[in-house]
Amino acid sequence: MNKNLLLVKKGNVQDKLEKFADFGRTANDGVTRLALSEEDRLVRDYFCNYCENLGLVVEVDDMGNIYGTLEGVENKPPIVIGSHLDTVKKGGKFDGALGVIAGLEVIETLIENNITPKIPITVVNFTNEEGARFEPSMMSSGVLAGKFQKTDMMMSKDVNGISFKEALESINYVGSIEKRLKDATAFLELHIEQGPVLDHHSISIGVVDCVVGMVCYEIEINGESNHAGTTPMNMRKDALFVANDLISTVQGNLGRLDEQLVFTIGRMNVHPNIHTVIPNKVIFTIEARHKDPQVMKQVEAIIESLANAPTRETATIQISKLWDRDTVWFEPQLRDSVEQSANALHYSHKRVVSGAGHDAQFIASFIPSTMIFVPSINGKSHMENEKTNWDDCEQGVNVLLNTVLNLMEGN
Amino acid sequence: MNKNLLLVKKGNVQDKLEKFADFGRTANDGVTRLALSEEDRLVRDYFCNYCENLGLVVEVDDMGNIYGTLEGVENKPPIVIGSHLDTVKKGGKFDGALGVIAGLEVIETLIENNITPKIPITVVNFTNEEGARFEPSMMSSGVLAGKFQKTDMMMSKDVNGISFKEALESINYVGSIEKRLKDATAFLELHIEQGPVLDHHSISIGVVDCVVGMVCYEIEINGESNHAGTTPMNMRKDALFVANDLISTVQGNLGRLDEQLVFTIGRMNVHPNIHTVIPNKVIFTIEARHKDPQVMKQVEAIIESLANAPTRETATIQISKLWDRDTVWFEPQLRDSVEQSANALHYSHKRVVSGAGHDAQFIASFIPSTMIFVPSINGKSHMENEKTNWDDCEQGVNVLLNTVLNLMEGN
Repeated sequence: MNKNLLLVKKGNVQDKLEKFADFGRTANDGVTRLALSEEDRLVRDYFCNYCENLGLVVEVDDMGNIYGTLEGVENKPPIVIGSHLDTVKKGGKFDGALGVIAGLEVIETLIENNITPKIPITVVNFTNEEGARFEPSMMSSGVLAGKFQKTDMMMSKDVNGISFKEALESINYVGSIEKRLKDATAFLELHIEQGPVLDHHSISIGVVDCVVGMVCYEIEINGESNHAGTTPMNMRKDALFVANDLISTVQGNLGRLDEQLVFTIGRMNVHPNIHTVIPNKVIFTIEARHKDPQVMKQVEAIIESLANAPTRETATIQISKLWDRDTVWFEPQLRDSVEQSANALHYSHKRVVSGAGHDAQFIASFIPSTMIFVPSINGKSHMENEKTNWDDCEQGVNVLLNTVLNLMEGN
Repeated sequence: MNKNLLLVKKGNVQDKLEKFADFGRTANDGVTRLALSEEDRLVRDYFCNYCENLGLVVEVDDMGNIYGTLEGVENKPPIVIGSHLDTVKKGGKFDGALGVIAGLEVIETLIENNITPKIPITVVNFTNEEGARFEPSMMSSGVLAGKFQKTDMMMSKDVNGISFKEALESINYVGSIEKRLKDATAFLELHIEQGPVLDHHSISIGVVDCVVGMVCYEIEINGESNHAGTTPMNMRKDALFVANDLISTVQGNLGRLDEQLVFTIGRMNVHPNIHTVIPNKVIFTIEARHKDPQVMKQVEAIIESLANAPTRETATIQISKLWDRDTVWFEPQLRDSVEQSANALHYSHKRVVSGAGHDAQFIASFIPSTMIFVPSINGKSHMENEKTNWDDCEQGVNVLLNTVLNLMEGN
């Protein structure tokens, strides 16, 4: 494929990212662009205009997903490139936007090089990936994949009681159900890693094997509240000390399972949470992720066995599974094609897994899909100081561009 | 002293407690009578009328403390009996009220037995012991003892922004600074134990040695927030896992110190407290109580050594002492007198310590003082189902009555 190697124009990716970041840029150079907000409307208008100026056919579906398509020589299912333009509150300029901009940049490079693609190329912006204003996250790719019901999603409300439906109508981005992405040759999503692995190893390109499976449990311990000064230690049912013992147990047992396993106790609430009162109730979550379903089975067994843990205090322990999801494996041929492009470009690269969720994991259920990661400095994302080196951004787009060229060769 | 044994009339204590509980009685037979509330005003009016009907001289000081005095044969400093009539929200009918009613009952019994006391006897109701509406607790006994500044206390505000001063004026209980309790032969406070020890051992009378010393620390751990799915375990600075290790350490080390030591981690807050985010900050309190200052020194050393604890994750640990207070020992002769009365009455009794704070601990700084405890069933207090058997209440008052008679013998 070396004969076809093409590179984007130096500086273009940075220029585009900064231009898009103007919509909702914060004082600390981050971005707040919640789904279907005024900032989102403005960036959508800009994106549509940009597509039209490139000569793309712009279409919007009933979830507000926007597609800009460069027609190909043959009228075959397109190669689709994209991600999302919404951000969390006080997020960064790379998360999501990079994947959309990458699509524009690939198309722009082809046009500038007078290449008419063999098959159509579509750049897509998925509505409400973050779920920061309207739950759940990855809402619209989830609807396309049949994971979520559109009617439920339309009723999802923000903190001010405004529904997704109302907000979508108010920014005038309700399109037609017929325009939904249904069939494609491939879906490619370039995204920042949102973790520290690539940065830690000074590697520019992550070739993504899968989005790892996960499980989330809630543990509730009920003891008895009493006066902290008057109740002897051996007459207590202290829910916090029981929680502490359980966390030690689970930390030890999960820690020994597999070094690729990640697990987090992110939420923990103590009741009544008064310094002079023995806690009568503690509720905490345990969330764990690993690509191997066999490991995840062991994780579940370890967590569920906490219900029978011996505790120094007499208290009841309830274990509830809040949700789980299976590992989503990306299409091996596409993944190999990404790897070959990185090789051909002589970029450092590494096979990685995605610990975070992405639109691609839902799209993968009906379109051959894969992802490309670029490093997040110190693993930071969902923060104003989220940062990826401009060179890495550009290398990511170059890998994407050459993967697209490669795919067209094969078609 | 057997010759002087006197008993209160059967049923009187119960009748009085139920009558007083009518002021603020809740649907679940508890009491809500916050300091200086309308319910508090009504119970104060009732208390004053009751005193006047008994022929007592009623006086009010500048903190709203109410004193009802039965004159004695000699004009000596009085024996003072009392506690408080305010309650926490949804509290019980025994906490505080029992100690005030006991004073009335002792005086009433003397009058009915045509006994003119050798020295005056005063029943006192201290304003705002609970601190439930206006912080701090034991406010007015603290002002009498010079522990709190009156001007600060007057500015203490409730959740609605009403100051203690405004509330005291609005219920019309502002008296004169000259009427403050300054000198007395003894101060005696009968109170429910608010702990499970007496009930657990089926003992009716607690002869209280002291109010135990206590210390309260706040521990703050700062780690780093990152995505729960994308950050490998060995690249985390998980503040919650560090907190868990510290709690295990402190629990083990304090647990081995002394069986009478009590310690509680009552308040713990995790940030940002989202199940998919690694906690970057955990703040928790450690509160410990013991009568022996040497043990308390060891407690402080153990807690302060947490700052240097080895942690698996890189995080910073800050230890701050929020406050401490020394053990307050009650007057040994008074305590012995209580014990002798219980003996003479053939009531089961036991030396105990008070783990909770009481007005007596402040009054003890300038008046020889002691306390008498009666059992709290299952250790419950500050709840609507707070309960002490009527027989135990009556036995407590009988011990108090005979202690008073005993003291007058000695004068």
